[in-house]
Amino acid sequence: MRYQLYYWSGIQGRGEFVRLALEDAGADYVDIAREQGDDAIMPFLAGDQAGALPFAPPFLKVGRTVITQTAAILLYLAPRLKLVPAGAVAGLYAHQLQLTVTDLVAEVHDTHHPIASSLYYKDQRAAALQRAEDFRQHRLPKYLGYFEDVLVRSDGLRALSAHSYVDLSLFQIMSGLDYAFPQAMRRLRRKLPHLHALAAQVAERPRIAAYLASPRRLAFNEDGIFRHYPELDAAR
Amino acid sequence: MRYQLYYWSGIQGRGEFVRLALEDAGADYVDIAREQGDDAIMPFLAGDQAGALPFAPPFLKVGRTVITQTAAILLYLAPRLKLVPAGAVAGLYAHQLQLTVTDLVAEVHDTHHPIASSLYYKDQRAAALQRAEDFRQHRLPKYLGYFEDVLVRSDGLRALSAHSYVDLSLFQIMSGLDYAFPQAMRRLRRKLPHLHALAAQVAERPRIAAYLASPRRLAFNEDGIFRHYPELDAAR
Repeated sequence: MRYQLYYWSGIQGRGEFVRLALEDAGADYVDIAREQGDDAIMPFLAGDQAGALPFAPPFLKVGRTVITQTAAILLYLAPRLKLVPAGAVAGLYAHQLQLTVTDLVAEVHDTHHPIASSLYYKDQRAAALQRAEDFRQHRLPKYLGYFEDVLVRSDGLRALSAHSYVDLSLFQIMSGLDYAFPQAMRRLRRKLPHLHALAAQVAERPRIAAYLASPRRLAFNEDGIFRHYPELDAAR
Repeated sequence: MRYQLYYWSGIQGRGEFVRLALEDAGADYVDIAREQGDDAIMPFLAGDQAGALPFAPPFLKVGRTVITQTAAILLYLAPRLKLVPAGAVAGLYAHQLQLTVTDLVAEVHDTHHPIASSLYYKDQRAAALQRAEDFRQHRLPKYLGYFEDVLVRSDGLRALSAHSYVDLSLFQIMSGLDYAFPQAMRRLRRKLPHLHALAAQVAERPRIAAYLASPRRLAFNEDGIFRHYPELDAAR
């Protein structure tokens, strides 16, 4: 069964969490919009296709089944790709962690779009400066401190002791944040040894290293979720 | 097994989606902070308890297992409370819909707190006026139009033809939005016949009707997620 991933072709975005899982597992998949263009996504959003109605990409087509929402796609894929420890409790804990990644990603997006996704960044820059400052000072340390604690705690280690898709997602979070907020991330670095070690380990996994070096890995850019606007990373 | 729900005692908030499921199923549960005060939540957030580390309430304790994230709690409870149709595809679709409810709830929160949760509403009112306008004009019709389409589509009806926790969550969304944005909701009313019919049906379910009339149901208020600030609902 070949997995069909539908996500915007020009950004890593939320689709990248799914791409990383498929790549790490060496799964047979096609990144539809990279091959056919973003127009291939539209009939699904318009409700012209059978299956679950997606609110937004990414969604995954598996045979006739359409699965939407990043965390739900990973929940579905994880046991099939052997990217989660066996057992209901560990699987549920991994999913909860992924949902917290989801929350963080939404807050990262809102650092540059605090007013409206329908407006340009330059048209909401004043609010973005304020929101990004709160993010750097409060939300970023809170989220990353949380994930660091999860890695440190024995319960966390038990749930994640086997390699899991959550490791891949935390790698992606660290990569994106290093791109978008390099100064803020440097200031936090000493407090997050486990997160940095995990991100380094993931980057060295053979299939991930090959993926990151390939043209399939898009560069971070200012159309995606993790954007580098230096003024949003300014030291106080 | 008595379920132990941990959520702030003064607001409906995200905990209400879990309360509605437990109430509709007539489950044996205790709303811990309503009985013991909000301090009972703190040891879990501080990592002093075994089990999954919660990032934030709500979380549910079932024996020694701690489950966090509203949508993950409902994913866990649904088959046990018989609040989701049988079958992996239907269960996953319901979960995806709940995750989209989660996204909507976060955007509702940000209409009154677009800059920082750590600041008062009055200190971010100018940005809130802008964000709320975009919400009323673009995001609210998009989300509710999406859920209306889901109810209309045969696939949606198949997944939701049996009563499910998603029905309860959509009832809660409609109730909260009617409270927070009465004018905007009146203008959308004609376009959402299925959503309004579903909300009315849920309100008449005997256990839900009894719950809504009981002191266990907190009133909406301006500490919660759905807040009525008339200026954020202003007609253009």
